[in-house]
Amino acid sequence: MKAFEMITIPVREEKPRKTGLTTLLDRGIGYHAALDLTEQAADYIDLIKLGWGTSRLMPEEAIKKKIRLYRDNQIMVSNGGTILEIAYQQGKATAFLKSAKELGMDSIEVSNGVVTINKEDKRNLIVEAKELGLEVFSEIGRKDPLEDAKLTLEDRIEEAKNDMAAGASKIIIEAREGGKGLGIYDDKGSVKEEMVRSLVSEIGLGNIIFEAPDKSQQVHLILNLGINVSLGNIRPDDAIPLETLRRGLRGDTLGKL
Amino acid sequence: MKAFEMITIPVREEKPRKTGLTTLLDRGIGYHAALDLTEQAADYIDLIKLGWGTSRLMPEEAIKKKIRLYRDNQIMVSNGGTILEIAYQQGKATAFLKSAKELGMDSIEVSNGVVTINKEDKRNLIVEAKELGLEVFSEIGRKDPLEDAKLTLEDRIEEAKNDMAAGASKIIIEAREGGKGLGIYDDKGSVKEEMVRSLVSEIGLGNIIFEAPDKSQQVHLILNLGINVSLGNIRPDDAIPLETLRRGLRGDTLGKL
Amino acid sequence: MKAFEMITIPVREEKPRKTGLTTLLDRGIGYHAALDLTEQAADYIDLIKLGWGTSRLMPEEAIKKKIRLYRDNQIMVSNGGTILEIAYQQGKATAFLKSAKELGMDSIEVSNGVVTINKEDKRNLIVEAKELGLEVFSEIGRKDPLEDAKLTLEDRIEEAKNDMAAGASKIIIEAREGGKGLGIYDDKGSVKEEMVRSLVSEIGLGNIIFEAPDKSQQVHLILNLGINVSLGNIRPDDAIPLETLRRGLRGDTLGKL
Repeated sequence: MKAFEMITIPVREEKPRKTGLTTLLDRGIGYHAALDLTEQAADYIDLIKLGWGTSRLMPEEAIKKKIRLYRDNQIMVSNGGTILEIAYQQGKATAFLKSAKELGMDSIEVSNGVVTINKEDKRNLIVEAKELGLEVFSEIGRKDPLEDAKLTLEDRIEEAKNDMAAGASKIIIEAREGGKGLGIYDDKGSVKEEMVRSLVSEIGLGNIIFEAPDKSQQVHLILNLGINVSLGNIRPDDAIPLETLRRGLRGDTLGKL
Repeated sequence: MKAFEMITIPVREEKPRKTGLTTLLDRGIGYHAALDLTEQAADYIDLIKLGWGTSRLMPEEAIKKKIRLYRDNQIMVSNGGTILEIAYQQGKATAFLKSAKELGMDSIEVSNGVVTINKEDKRNLIVEAKELGLEVFSEIGRKDPLEDAKLTLEDRIEEAKNDMAAGASKIIIEAREGGKGLGIYDDKGSVKEEMVRSLVSEIGLGNIIFEAPDKSQQVHLILNLGINVSLGNIRPDDAIPLETLRRGLRGDTLGKL
Repeated sequence: MKAFEMITIPVREEKPRKTGLTTLLDRGIGYHAALDLTEQAADYIDLIKLGWGTSRLMPEEAIKKKIRLYRDNQIMVSNGGTILEIAYQQGKATAFLKSAKELGMDSIEVSNGVVTINKEDKRNLIVEAKELGLEVFSEIGRKDPLEDAKLTLEDRIEEAKNDMAAGASKIIIEAREGGKGLGIYDDKGSVKEEMVRSLVSEIGLGNIIFEAPDKSQQVHLILNLGINVSLGNIRPDDAIPLETLRRGLRGDTLGKL
């Protein structure tokens, strides 16, 4: 039972949701912080990504315990794409995927944000992860703004379609933690509407997770694509604030949904 | 007993204080974070506002437990204004006020930041909350910068005086979480000194809580209005840092108080 | 044992390290947050500074307990320089140093960021702290950008050399929490490379801790001075993210070390 239930708010699909996913970026929060997060906000969190290579530096027991806590709260847990890119570069992708499974993750992010991974190898990674019983999220985009700018819209769409065909369940549009100068955001973090429209029309709104670390980006995407747009790279502290935007409980979206 | 008590610092009124209030914006922190906060900083926190509509999304038991913890540490707890505006809009203001009381809140923020509430209705809300035994903080200002810009200084002062007459114990000057382009702040977050002077002279320094989320704003207001200016929308992490500014324990105010 | 140990990363010196120190700025975090921090990241944290005058406002028992936790995790703990400057100004430096020792600190930061402390007195403070068995970190730079701009490069180098001669084990280059318009950073927070080169060549890379609160600053210094550059004023939440930069586990440094 939630507080103040006499106040009517828009209803959303319950977990496990197919649309309107909120996915968080965990940069290495500790166990008490994770307890706080799940106690307050588990209903509003679909997936937590253990950011880039942070998990490589964590005590194995600590990370297992945190993953178990998240999973016990019906939250999916995946790696950040960078660490799989490094494993691939070192010829250890298979060992990495098995280890991720053993640590308790139930999903995998496959990306080529820094390391170059050719089409066939990306496809094989997706297939291999699926065969291990892991759900696959595929990320599109490069982490260096200069490199990312070289990708045409057609490149992005083609890659997304290939990844879906290989078995990826959602496509993540890269924006990093900063949300500027990459993918759908210009150098100030404003949304490039034309690109969003094309991605949605070609890939399908339900198949996309837009990384949207800043409130202004979340507001823009919710007002333009609806309360069930899937959003990623949300800061753990913003899990509840984001849900207030989706439910019209904050000035920015109140009365506009 | 505090650490390093041999170091002399300016003395401030003890809680419950009439001036120099520090009020925090709680965006949904969990129980361990709230324990940390009260253990370190309870002496420096007068009021915690459960931001905008966040409480509507919280498990009722979790929010009751947190409110009890705050109250046990002699910290007042109020709603954020937005949720009462929504309740008003849905014709449920009375039910909301009663529920707030039952959850353990001892004070209420009445605002018209997004929803239009006419003079008489705002007055009635204040009176009704008072009759339930709740202290009332009234907020002046709109959350949309374009809407806020339409309010003249005279409008703000008149509304503040009406709200005080109706029973509000303090007037909060709206700045939101961001602190830019609203009320006493220009688009860069700098203080509009002329407006501050007029508000203070008409409403009385002791009756105002200036929302001041950024350090530069806190420094400016403390240096210009004294260490006992009441400040609001302080981030929980900034409770101690703000108090160091008030006591001359940080470079920005050291030797200038 | 860490997670994903099949992935090879650059090896670094173990604690207690002589180079490549990571020093955090603690602005007053509570005990659960400190537990989270040490459980996840103790291997990557060399020193925690209790920021500016925050400790003066803390319950003595709370601060003792936190210092003990840090020390039990082989993390050094020092004051922020400002509080010793205030103690000096009030003629209570000796009492302060003894109290710091009693609270459990094992190191002291000596600075003259706000209060003017002449050469001889700064030297005496360093000597006195050393005699009490405290390790000394000396900070160079002023907290007010206008004051800081008056210090020439030669002034900084001379002061650093004097402090080393008096017994300081490292020199901290001031950047405050904000990292802009001070020392090696211009008004936008970009690194002044010429100044960095001169400081390194005159003082010695191994003797310097560069305060570097922002990720872009950390990346720049690691790419230019190597993974074992000592960095300071790191936010507790950034302890793990910084270490991923040092180990090539994040896009910004992956493949560039």
